[in-house]
Amino acid sequence: MVEVSLSGRTETVAAIRDADHPRDSLIARFGADKPLKLDAGVSLSPFQIAYKTYGTLNAERSNAVLVCHALTGDQHAASIHPVTGKMGWWETLVGPGKPIDTERYFVICPNVVGACMGTTGPASTNPKTGKPWGLDFPVVTIRDMVRAQAMLLDHLGIESLFAVAGGSMGGMQVLQWAASYPERVFAALPIACSTRHSAQNIAFHEVGRQAVMADPEWRQGRYLLEGTNPRRGLAVARMGAHITYLSDAALHRKFGRKFQDRENPTFSFDADFEVESYLRHQGISFVERFDANSYLYLTRAMDYFDLAADYDGVLANGFKGAPTRFCVISFTSDWLFPTSDSRAIVHALNAAGARVSFAEIVTDKGHDAFLLDEPEMFAIVRGFLDGAGAARGLDAKAAAG
Amino acid sequence: MVEVSLSGRTETVAAIRDADHPRDSLIARFGADKPLKLDAGVSLSPFQIAYKTYGTLNAERSNAVLVCHALTGDQHAASIHPVTGKMGWWETLVGPGKPIDTERYFVICPNVVGACMGTTGPASTNPKTGKPWGLDFPVVTIRDMVRAQAMLLDHLGIESLFAVAGGSMGGMQVLQWAASYPERVFAALPIACSTRHSAQNIAFHEVGRQAVMADPEWRQGRYLLEGTNPRRGLAVARMGAHITYLSDAALHRKFGRKFQDRENPTFSFDADFEVESYLRHQGISFVERFDANSYLYLTRAMDYFDLAADYDGVLANGFKGAPTRFCVISFTSDWLFPTSDSRAIVHALNAAGARVSFAEIVTDKGHDAFLLDEPEMFAIVRGFLDGAGAARGLDAKAAAG
Repeated sequence: MVEVSLSGRTETVAAIRDADHPRDSLIARFGADKPLKLDAGVSLSPFQIAYKTYGTLNAERSNAVLVCHALTGDQHAASIHPVTGKMGWWETLVGPGKPIDTERYFVICPNVVGACMGTTGPASTNPKTGKPWGLDFPVVTIRDMVRAQAMLLDHLGIESLFAVAGGSMGGMQVLQWAASYPERVFAALPIACSTRHSAQNIAFHEVGRQAVMADPEWRQGRYLLEGTNPRRGLAVARMGAHITYLSDAALHRKFGRKFQDRENPTFSFDADFEVESYLRHQGISFVERFDANSYLYLTRAMDYFDLAADYDGVLANGFKGAPTRFCVISFTSDWLFPTSDSRAIVHALNAAGARVSFAEIVTDKGHDAFLLDEPEMFAIVRGFLDGAGAARGLDAKAAAG
Repeated sequence: MVEVSLSGRTETVAAIRDADHPRDSLIARFGADKPLKLDAGVSLSPFQIAYKTYGTLNAERSNAVLVCHALTGDQHAASIHPVTGKMGWWETLVGPGKPIDTERYFVICPNVVGACMGTTGPASTNPKTGKPWGLDFPVVTIRDMVRAQAMLLDHLGIESLFAVAGGSMGGMQVLQWAASYPERVFAALPIACSTRHSAQNIAFHEVGRQAVMADPEWRQGRYLLEGTNPRRGLAVARMGAHITYLSDAALHRKFGRKFQDRENPTFSFDADFEVESYLRHQGISFVERFDANSYLYLTRAMDYFDLAADYDGVLANGFKGAPTRFCVISFTSDWLFPTSDSRAIVHALNAAGARVSFAEIVTDKGHDAFLLDEPEMFAIVRGFLDGAGAARGLDAKAAAG
C-alpha cells in the first residue's frame, strides 16, 4: 500500500503558504477594479497570478513568448522547482540556447487560475472568509485561464506576444489564445493537445476525481481547514493518470514484466513488478507538491474544453481570418491526444485559411513525449520560431541586449 | 461522489453467505485427502468449488464444455444471477441453440479459486479460525485455478473435455488448460486474451488494487471481520478498469460529450457528462456483487500469468505435440489484449505444429466485445465447435438425449 509519512497539519500550512505566497515567483495582483470574469458567470476578485520570467524583454516589447503549463505543471518551467528541488518541467525546451531560447526571447510562464502554486485557486485564502476557498472556489475553464493571462500581459505592458506555446492542457490554452485574442498572438505552438476532450479522457478524469473524493480525508473539500489531506486518493488518481501519459510500448521497454529486486514472484501484494514500484513512487511524490482540490478543478476545466462549441460547432470559425502562424505537433504513441486530434486542428486551420505547419513525431514515449528529450521536436520548434522571428523582424542580438 | 446505501454489517453477512453457501449453484467439496497444491508452495485444504452446469452429459461423457470466467465473472454464465437478478454473463454465447449449444453440449462453469461466489477464496471461512480468510488466503495463480478445475472434472468423472472456452482471464485459463492437460482438451477457444499480462495491464491492475487498499474501510483486508466494506475504493477500481474494457470509439459513439439531463455544463463536480454518470453506475453496481479482496487476488493472478516462463521462455514448448485444436479470437478495438497478443499465441501454436485457426473480428466495442452481441464471433464459435464435434464423433441427437 502507498504509505505517506508527513503529518497532515504541517502539509496544510505548507499548502496554504505556497498558494498565497509562492516561493521564487513573481506575483501580479488584481484588485477590486480588475475582476476576472469567469465563464461560470461570476467574477473572481481580488485575485493574483504567480509567474516566472526568463530572458529579457526587448525595447520593442516584441519578443515575449508565453509558455502555458499542463494539468500538473506550474510556473517553474525552466528553473529549480522550490518544492521538489528538481529542474523545471520544460527545461528540455526552454532556456539559453534551447529551442525556446531565453537569450532571444522573453519567456513568461504563469501558473493557471485554479492551480495551487500561487495563482488564485481552491487552496488560496478566500478574502471574504479568511479561510481556504476549497469547493467554494468557482469552477474555471480553459478560457478563464487565458483571460487571466491576457490581464497579466496588460499588467506587464505587452500588447502582442511573439509566440504562445504549450503541451496537453497547455496546448488547449494555446488554441484558446489564438481563438480569443488572434491579434495578440504572432505564432502559436499547440503540442499534443485537442480542441475538445474525448469521452474516454473525461472518463479517466472522472475516475481520478472519484479517487480523490472517495478519500475520507478529502472532507468534502475542506481538508485544509480540518488539517487532513486526501493523499491516498490523490496518489491513486495520479497513478491512474500516469499510465495514460505513457504508452504500452514505453512501459514494456522500461519495465516489461521485470520483478523488483528479486527474480521470482513473492506471492503477495507487495510491489512485485518494477512497474508497480514506479507507479507508487509517482503517486507519492505527486501528493507532496499538488493540491487535491486543484486536481479536481483543472481536470474539470479540461473536460469542459470544447472550442468548436463556442463557434456554433464549426471549429474553423474560431480561427477565421487568423493572422497567427501555427505549428501543430503530435506524437505517434500518444493515445490520450492522438494524432487524429491534431489533424482535426490542422483541418480547421486550413479551412479558416490560416498559416499552419504540422508534424507528427515518431516516438514510443506516449503523451509525455512533449516533456522529454525529443530531438525532432526541438528541431521543429527551433525552426518554426526562427522563421516566425524573421517574419516578426526579431534580431537575436538586440533581443539578447 | 459515489454514494452507497447498504449498511456494512448487512453486506458482511451476505458476502460470507455467498462465499460459503452460494445460491443456485452446485458445490464440489474436497477434503483433507484432496488438497489443492498451489504455486505459492502451500496446500489449500479443505476447499470447495461452486459451479453451474447446463445441458446433459452424454453416455460417452464426451460432450463436456468447460466455460472459464473472466476477472469479475462467476459460475452463472447462462442463467439468472442470484445476486443481481440479471441474466448470466455469457448468455449471448451459451444456451439452447446458441453457439455453445446446451442442447448438444454439457456445459460446466466453475467459479475460480480466489473468487467470491462459492469457490474457496478470501471471503470464505477459514476452517482453522472459523473467520473469513482475508489476506491470510494464499495468493493463487491461473495455473492453480486450472488445477482446481481438473480436480472438479475428476470429481464429475469427466476424463476428457470436448472443449474449453473463455475470454480475458477465462482465455488465460483456456491456454493454461491446453498447456497443463493437453490430453484432456479436445478443442480450445481462447478469446481476447494473452499468454502474459503486459506492463501496462499490470499497471492498471495495480492502480485498482491501490484504490481498494487506500480505502480506510479495507482495514488491511479484515473488513468482513470488522463489519466495514471498502466500497468506495472498489468502486473507483472498477470505474478505472471499466474504461479499459471499452474503446475510445465505443465511448464516443455511446456518450460523446453529451451532458447528463441538461444542455449546458453545471460548473460543478456533479456527473455533468453522461459518461461520468455511466461510470459511477458501473462502480456502484459492481460493489454490490463483488468482494474487494477477491478483486486483489484475481488481478494478481492475471499479473503473474506468463505461460512461456514455465517453458524456459519458449511459448511454443508449452504446446509441443498438442493434440488440441485451437480457435483464437481477437477484436480490433481491444487495447487491453490487442490482436498482437493473439497473434503471438497463434505463432507459438504454429511453431508447435498445433492445429489452429485465428480470427480478428472488426468491432469498435473494445475488450468487452467477447461478452456482447457479436454475430461474427457467434458464427466462428459455432463453426469451430461443429467441426470439432464432427471430428470427435459427437451426435447432436444422442447428446441432447
